[in-house]
Amino acid sequence: MTADIKQQIISMVGPDLEQVEAALEENLSPNLELVREIASHLLFAGGKRLRPLLMIHAARMCGYATGEEILFSTIFEYLHAATLLHDDVVDGADMRRGKPAAHTRWDAPKVVLTGDFLLARALNVAARTGSPKVISVIARITQEMSQGEIDQLENKGRPDLTEDEYNRIIERKTAVLIQGACRSGAIVANAPEKKETALTDYGYHLGMAFQMADDLLDYTATAEELGKNPGADIREGKLTLPLIHSLANAGPADREWILSVIQDSEFDPDRFAGLRDKISDLGGIAYTEKRAVRHVETAIKALSAFEDSPSKTLLSLIADYSIQRKV
Amino acid sequence: MTADIKQQIISMVGPDLEQVEAALEENLSPNLELVREIASHLLFAGGKRLRPLLMIHAARMCGYATGEEILFSTIFEYLHAATLLHDDVVDGADMRRGKPAAHTRWDAPKVVLTGDFLLARALNVAARTGSPKVISVIARITQEMSQGEIDQLENKGRPDLTEDEYNRIIERKTAVLIQGACRSGAIVANAPEKKETALTDYGYHLGMAFQMADDLLDYTATAEELGKNPGADIREGKLTLPLIHSLANAGPADREWILSVIQDSEFDPDRFAGLRDKISDLGGIAYTEKRAVRHVETAIKALSAFEDSPSKTLLSLIADYSIQRKV
Repeated sequence: MTADIKQQIISMVGPDLEQVEAALEENLSPNLELVREIASHLLFAGGKRLRPLLMIHAARMCGYATGEEILFSTIFEYLHAATLLHDDVVDGADMRRGKPAAHTRWDAPKVVLTGDFLLARALNVAARTGSPKVISVIARITQEMSQGEIDQLENKGRPDLTEDEYNRIIERKTAVLIQGACRSGAIVANAPEKKETALTDYGYHLGMAFQMADDLLDYTATAEELGKNPGADIREGKLTLPLIHSLANAGPADREWILSVIQDSEFDPDRFAGLRDKISDLGGIAYTEKRAVRHVETAIKALSAFEDSPSKTLLSLIADYSIQRKV
Repeated sequence: MTADIKQQIISMVGPDLEQVEAALEENLSPNLELVREIASHLLFAGGKRLRPLLMIHAARMCGYATGEEILFSTIFEYLHAATLLHDDVVDGADMRRGKPAAHTRWDAPKVVLTGDFLLARALNVAARTGSPKVISVIARITQEMSQGEIDQLENKGRPDLTEDEYNRIIERKTAVLIQGACRSGAIVANAPEKKETALTDYGYHLGMAFQMADDLLDYTATAEELGKNPGADIREGKLTLPLIHSLANAGPADREWILSVIQDSEFDPDRFAGLRDKISDLGGIAYTEKRAVRHVETAIKALSAFEDSPSKTLLSLIADYSIQRKV
C-alpha cells in the first residue's frame, strides 16, 4: 500500500523533479566549489524535494503555468537545506539522511557560512518573484524557524514539556516552511484569498502530520530505515509527542523509570528498546498516530476548495504518504 | 580637527539616533529575552549606527520624508549585527567593540541562532518596505557577504594575497552593506536613476575607505583606542593592505622576516611592535592611507549629484570622518 502511493507520487512528479534538480544546481554560484561541495552533501544526497514539489503543484492547482514555478520552488529547498546545516551545528547531530552531518566532515565555521550562503540564494530567488507578499511569507518563515530553534534549544531535556508546547515547536520547526511553500504557490498564481487560505491550511496540517510521523519513526523504525540510529531525539534531549503523551499517562513507577532512561547521560540501546515497548504500552505511539491522521484528514479537507486536477490528486497523495512513509 | 568633525556629526544626528535606538529595541521580539540579551550585547553596546544613519540621510537627501526611514534603517543594523555574530563564531575572535565576543560568553549554537534571528528581523522589516527592489539589494548584500566570508576563510593566512584580492574581500565584507544602505535610501525615496547611482557610488567608496581605515587602526592604534589588542588581524590570519603593500615592496630579507612574524603561531607583542615599524618604513601605512583618501574623495565627488542640504553635509562629513577616526 505504502509502496503503491510512493510509486504513484514518483510517476507523477518525475519530470518536475528533474527540472528542480537542475534548477537547484544552476543557482549555486559556480565560483564557489567548496560551498557547492558542502551544500551538495546535503542538497544532492537524495532528498525528497517535498517542499519544491508542494510549491510547484500548489501554484499549478491555482492555474499558474509560466514554467517559472520550477525556479521559485528552489527557494524552499534552499531554506530547508540552510536550516539543516545550522541545525547540524546546533544539535551536534552526527548523522543526517544516512550520511555524516556536515560539521563532522567540515568544520563548523564553514558549515555556518554555507548555511548563510544558501539562505542568501533563497532570498535572491525570492526577490526574482517580484512579489512583496512572497517576501513577507519568507520573512515570517525565517523568523519563526529561528525562534523555534532557540526555543527548542532552551527546552532541551525538559521532562515536563506539554503537548501544546510540542505542537508549537514542530509548527515552527517544520510546518511553517511547508505551509509557506504551499501558500507561496497560491501567491505567485495570484489566486483568490479563499484558495490561498485553503493552501495555507493544507500546508500547515501537512507539515504537522509530517513532523509527527518523523517523530514516530524515531521510536518505530530500524536504524537501516532511518539512515541513523533510532533514539536520536532522546540523545539530543528532544521530547516528542510519543514520549510526552506516555509520560502524561504513566503511573509513578513507569514515570520514574522513563525519566531515568531519558536523563541517563549514557545511551543504552537495550534500555531504549525497553522504552519503545513502554511507550507503545502506554499508548504514546497510537495517540501520536491518531493526531497525525487527524492532521492529514484536515489537510485533505482543505483541498476541497479546488476543482479536480492532477496537481490536486498529487497533493492529496502526498498527504496520505506523509504518515505512511518508512523514511 | 577629528574631534570637531565627530562633534559636528553627533550634533546633527542626535534626534535620529534616539529614534533608531528605539526602533532597534522595538523590533526585537519581546518574548525572547535570551535573544534580546545576546543581541543586546552587540546591538546595544555603543555602536555608531553608521549604516542606519546613512540610509536615513540618503533617503532624506532624495526628498523622502514619511518618517518610515527610521524603521527601514534598522534593516542595515540588524544585518550588520547578524554578520558580526556569525563572524564571531567563525573567527573565534575574543573581543568585539571592547567586550568579549558573544560566543565566549554564550555558546556558539545560541550565537548562530541569534544571528539567524536578526537576519530574519532584517528581512521582516525589508518586507515592510513593499519594494521588490529593496529586497533585491538586500538579497545581493547577504549573498556577497556570505561569499566574502567564505573566501576570507579560504584565504586565511595566505601570504601571497594580492591587493586586488584584498579589495574584493573588503568590498564584500564591508562596502556592499554600506553601499546597500545608501542605495536603499534612494530606492525608498523613489529617486531618479542618476541619484540612485550616485548614492550607490558614494556608499561603495565610503565602505572601502571605512574598511581600509579599520585595517590601518590594527597597525596604528593602541589597545585602549581599539577596545581590543592590536594585531588581531594577524592573529586571525588576515592579511590587510598595509601588510600586503609592504610585502610587495620588501627586499628578500625584510620579506622573510615579515613572513616569519605573521606565520609564527605564538603572538609576540614585541615582534608585533617591530612589524609595525617595518610596515611603516616600507610604506604600507602611507600607501593604505593614500588609497583610503582616494576613496573618500570619490565618495564626496559622487555627492555632487545633489543640491546642498543638511543631509548632504552630513554624508560629506561622515566620509571625511571615516578615515580620521581613532575607533
